[in-house]
Amino acid sequence: MTINNRIVLASRPEGAPTPENFRLEQAPVAAPGEGEVLVRTAFLSLDPYMRGRMSTAKSYAAPIGIGEVMGGEVVGHVVESRDPHFKPGDAVRAYSGWQEYAVLPGRTLAPVDESIAPLSTYLGVLGMPGFTAWAGLRHIGKPKKGETLAVAAATGPVGSVVGQLARLAGARAVGIAGGPEKTAFLRELGFDAAVDHRAPDFRDALKAACPDGIDVYFENVGGAVFAAVLPLLNQYARLPICGLIAEYNATGQPLDGPDRLPLFMRTVLVKSLTVRGFIQLEFAGERGEFEREMAAHLREGRIRYREDVTAGLEHAPAAFIGLLEGRNFGKALVRVA
Amino acid sequence: MTINNRIVLASRPEGAPTPENFRLEQAPVAAPGEGEVLVRTAFLSLDPYMRGRMSTAKSYAAPIGIGEVMGGEVVGHVVESRDPHFKPGDAVRAYSGWQEYAVLPGRTLAPVDESIAPLSTYLGVLGMPGFTAWAGLRHIGKPKKGETLAVAAATGPVGSVVGQLARLAGARAVGIAGGPEKTAFLRELGFDAAVDHRAPDFRDALKAACPDGIDVYFENVGGAVFAAVLPLLNQYARLPICGLIAEYNATGQPLDGPDRLPLFMRTVLVKSLTVRGFIQLEFAGERGEFEREMAAHLREGRIRYREDVTAGLEHAPAAFIGLLEGRNFGKALVRVA
Repeated sequence: MTINNRIVLASRPEGAPTPENFRLEQAPVAAPGEGEVLVRTAFLSLDPYMRGRMSTAKSYAAPIGIGEVMGGEVVGHVVESRDPHFKPGDAVRAYSGWQEYAVLPGRTLAPVDESIAPLSTYLGVLGMPGFTAWAGLRHIGKPKKGETLAVAAATGPVGSVVGQLARLAGARAVGIAGGPEKTAFLRELGFDAAVDHRAPDFRDALKAACPDGIDVYFENVGGAVFAAVLPLLNQYARLPICGLIAEYNATGQPLDGPDRLPLFMRTVLVKSLTVRGFIQLEFAGERGEFEREMAAHLREGRIRYREDVTAGLEHAPAAFIGLLEGRNFGKALVRVA
Repeated sequence: MTINNRIVLASRPEGAPTPENFRLEQAPVAAPGEGEVLVRTAFLSLDPYMRGRMSTAKSYAAPIGIGEVMGGEVVGHVVESRDPHFKPGDAVRAYSGWQEYAVLPGRTLAPVDESIAPLSTYLGVLGMPGFTAWAGLRHIGKPKKGETLAVAAATGPVGSVVGQLARLAGARAVGIAGGPEKTAFLRELGFDAAVDHRAPDFRDALKAACPDGIDVYFENVGGAVFAAVLPLLNQYARLPICGLIAEYNATGQPLDGPDRLPLFMRTVLVKSLTVRGFIQLEFAGERGEFEREMAAHLREGRIRYREDVTAGLEHAPAAFIGLLEGRNFGKALVRVA
């Protein structure tokens, strides 16, 4: 009998997650029933949104129960199939969580084509993060030739695609990332400027990198970066809001002042800003169009990416904790099989 | 020689304006030059945005200089014309400020038709405030049949039109205003519910008035009303932001916590909100379409309005101070001629 390694939520974090919030378990692998498929995970995706699912606070996804397998998207291969659409060896993408094996209804699996791009990219640049970047720019950010776009966490799978797509649209792309190694990589990717948010002169450096202000700020971070961006926004600037990783570990609302909301709303009014939160699922109908377009960009070398792969499911908790601290460098993945 | 009464900015307010910030002056009326027109003011419009122009803080309009005539829109009649497009007696709308007479280039005047609607409405329901309501709903709020729209300052010229247009679009309109007299008037106007923001149970009453949450919040107030609206917003809610009158008299950013910006941004993200500041000038190309549509609504009695007319230019400062405190009841106007 095959044994499944899986990581469950052992307890809910207070603030930043710790290794004790996770537990590695073994369990026998069940046989697939009618219409079901047994999938073996090759790569598990680690994404900031998972922090929200570890808490009970209202969010756009239901919380994971204590003792339940941590949720997450994976790519892997079919081991055994009782769905006529799949056969052993097929590459698929599935929402099966932090585990080595999973039995899933065949209708929940998406076939992926390893001849178009490496399997792991279906979790990154060609997957949900890439689609988040593409949809947020297409529907909200709308960078135009000659405009300036800024994005934080810019070496990550969302930010790096945002910046490169903005450049393809003729905009100036300013990437924000933590540390000189990351900013050097942004320049390699073709960003017009790269700013280190950990540098003491961050605010001045960002201002210098945006001599004509900022027309699109793609928000996936929040916190201090957002505060530095706000005064640089131009009239009619657009702010797609897809994440706020800097605040996911907060245990409550900050009690200290000043209350920045009135100034923010005044800026929204005076500069006619568009601030729009979104989850990529809203645009799910365009996923096929995105995949075709992005696959072409990858094939032609117009979009490049970086992955940060941790080997071994047992190291997923540490890698995830590092992701929330910005210690990953590129799309965070765990190689499971 | 005709004498012009005018009100100038005597000093800049710290916080709420006081009568000492204004000064009534007399000056001779100049004769119009080539292409110019002498206009006598019938009604002066008082609007919240004027508070911004009294300060030097960056806004969307240049500040008024000390000793300069207070800015503002008026309707009146041509007394003398050296522009072939105008003749004495013509009714016009002009941005001539807080004064009885003004000499203006003919090209800056807009003819208005008193046979379509009373002269004063061209400053209210058929003017800039009505257009603000119409454009903000058309481009941002987009209320749909069965949705719920909430608007504050709902007896005012923007709010009352917002609510009535929303009802014409098939939405449920919830009006927020200060005091039982105003909420009674909102029910007369056909609002589905009216909530008194001065009542001690305001938050509960607002919640009860919005059993299906809020899909559109038309923001012209800010402050405590916004705080009560925030938890009631539905997924994909739209927030046209056209004003923040509750905060115009603030002398700085509030130093006390809590800092509400992180919670707000989290709400924007989790509920996929659209927050969009705007000034009606952005949509100026649609003004003619608006006027035709709104004139038909007025003629057919589908849109009703209320005016709060102060007689005498010398009382304009007190009326304006009252407007910022919410003491007006309907579109604030000063009858000058």
